[in-house]
Amino acid sequence: MSESVLERLRRKYASRVDWFVYTEIARGSPPEVYEAALHLYRAGGKRVRPFVVMATARMLAGSEGEMYALPYAAAVELFHNFTLIHDDIMDKDDFRRGVPTTHKVYGEAFAILAGDLAYALSYRAISHARNLGEKPTNLAWAFNILTEAAVRVSEGQAMDMMFEEKTVVDYHDYLKMIYLKTGALLEASAKLGVVAAAEELDQGWMPILEAMGTYGKYVGLAFQIRDDILGVFGDPRKTGKPRYNDLIRGKKTLLVLYAYRHAEGEAKELIRRVLERKLTGDPEELEKVANVIRETGALSYAEDLARRFADEAIQIIDEIREVEDEEAAEALKELARFVVEREK
Amino acid sequence: MSESVLERLRRKYASRVDWFVYTEIARGSPPEVYEAALHLYRAGGKRVRPFVVMATARMLAGSEGEMYALPYAAAVELFHNFTLIHDDIMDKDDFRRGVPTTHKVYGEAFAILAGDLAYALSYRAISHARNLGEKPTNLAWAFNILTEAAVRVSEGQAMDMMFEEKTVVDYHDYLKMIYLKTGALLEASAKLGVVAAAEELDQGWMPILEAMGTYGKYVGLAFQIRDDILGVFGDPRKTGKPRYNDLIRGKKTLLVLYAYRHAEGEAKELIRRVLERKLTGDPEELEKVANVIRETGALSYAEDLARRFADEAIQIIDEIREVEDEEAAEALKELARFVVEREK
Repeated sequence: MSESVLERLRRKYASRVDWFVYTEIARGSPPEVYEAALHLYRAGGKRVRPFVVMATARMLAGSEGEMYALPYAAAVELFHNFTLIHDDIMDKDDFRRGVPTTHKVYGEAFAILAGDLAYALSYRAISHARNLGEKPTNLAWAFNILTEAAVRVSEGQAMDMMFEEKTVVDYHDYLKMIYLKTGALLEASAKLGVVAAAEELDQGWMPILEAMGTYGKYVGLAFQIRDDILGVFGDPRKTGKPRYNDLIRGKKTLLVLYAYRHAEGEAKELIRRVLERKLTGDPEELEKVANVIRETGALSYAEDLARRFADEAIQIIDEIREVEDEEAAEALKELARFVVEREK
Repeated sequence: MSESVLERLRRKYASRVDWFVYTEIARGSPPEVYEAALHLYRAGGKRVRPFVVMATARMLAGSEGEMYALPYAAAVELFHNFTLIHDDIMDKDDFRRGVPTTHKVYGEAFAILAGDLAYALSYRAISHARNLGEKPTNLAWAFNILTEAAVRVSEGQAMDMMFEEKTVVDYHDYLKMIYLKTGALLEASAKLGVVAAAEELDQGWMPILEAMGTYGKYVGLAFQIRDDILGVFGDPRKTGKPRYNDLIRGKKTLLVLYAYRHAEGEAKELIRRVLERKLTGDPEELEKVANVIRETGALSYAEDLARRFADEAIQIIDEIREVEDEEAAEALKELARFVVEREK
């Protein structure tokens, strides 16, 4: 089977963005703190956010769009990596991308600082667009877009941490949280692609800026909801995680929160025990929980919702009349399909 | 004695900036994370950086300059508070500004996040200048200036942490570190004042942008060197800290590092014991160390250097021909005098 256009562009952009980050942005002294800031970055990652920036710019303005998009693509990936470094400290996670997390290698104090530097480097990447001759109007937009996302990601992480202290969370609040924590940065990525495509972003660009922002947001939401589904119903041979992993860990996911809201009697008690982390881990008990999730309609609610977000995202691309590069538009649609169909 | 113009303007700007931060910038949900982000901000602080932004803008463009400077003043103070939140975690400090530090109140994980939010809010403050009608050129400059400072502050903090692992540090490296850690943000503050003063920052503004940046940098360096002097020779009744506090704590300061470099024989051994934190704390021993610091010329070197930085800063203000408001110029000069004359 030939490689999909999504996969081909993703890989192409990943190597361009990495090169740009390594040679232009993440250089300075002392080298140790730059190494720490890039520790997870070097370890891997699919570079989905840079793909969204670059493909959006290319869809709207061809290869010139791609050129201006490069600093913005680097910015969102560096920002993403900053959040990973700090989240790993907050969540006390020891491994990510197959390597020990930053604080495991460098200690917590230095990892906090490394995250702060990665954050600053994401803004430095945007500043760098000036060297390409990017207009001040566009630079100011780019800074604003990244900043708005940064505030939202912090708010989302705060909600997530505060949910941990509660037994039950309303699933609408949960959806808001995953928008802030995951959707907002993908929204910003798509918007930054639009900024890169515009010679000078003016009122005429506002509809497409909003439309592409919504595309990114929906892709992010669909991705996260699919993640929740795979966390319970994923095939262990494909996900690499134990069956019912999120149930065993008592994770508050859309499935469990929806099921809790809609279950009654004994079924509700069972879901409550998931949220209280009181499951014994007995396979029969886990099967029962999975059945409640199916019977309350939580699984089909989640599947429908993810599918609707993906379909809307695809429709947004279909309705854009300013498409300059069909291949990039196709790749963006493929991404929306991929996030809800993936098995891992 | 009547209040100095420095003190009067500092207080006036502090209340304006605080109002702006509380009502326009640091609002959002969940409120808990905004409260945590502002915990130290609310506890106090002299708002020196906002003063530098506002007074610079007023010096060059009167009250209109002040108006445009407000978001930038808020940005540097929020940024400063972000660094305090994270530094306190890294240094395991329990108290600051008379209150428990952020991580002591909210826990480490939430404090890391609160710092990240304060960081994002500093950029949000700059974004807000758009609402005042600030030109995109100026906005892009402002973002660049804050970003450059952010990278440098991270580098400075990294150097500081890496110095901790060494017994001896060259005092030139130490001066570089304090420039990055303290000088760079004051440099940015003065530059942001220039941006606010300019209707649109063009080539004609570059000499004054550079000059004011140097003013801020020198004030920062003079401040930090004075801090080092007070840490050893300060009057406990004025500083509120034990006599020879920095010696007892084995802190690597300019005085000790210079003294180590220039001492010989027994005197050098004594300073080495300070750096190795091997002092017994015996008053006689501490007096001896203080004498070595005097005899090697370390004290007069530090005093001269701080004085030279302050004098240069004053001269920079004196040489500015575009002064629109003499009172603001006077206040900026007073600040440079104050930082080297202060007893606490």
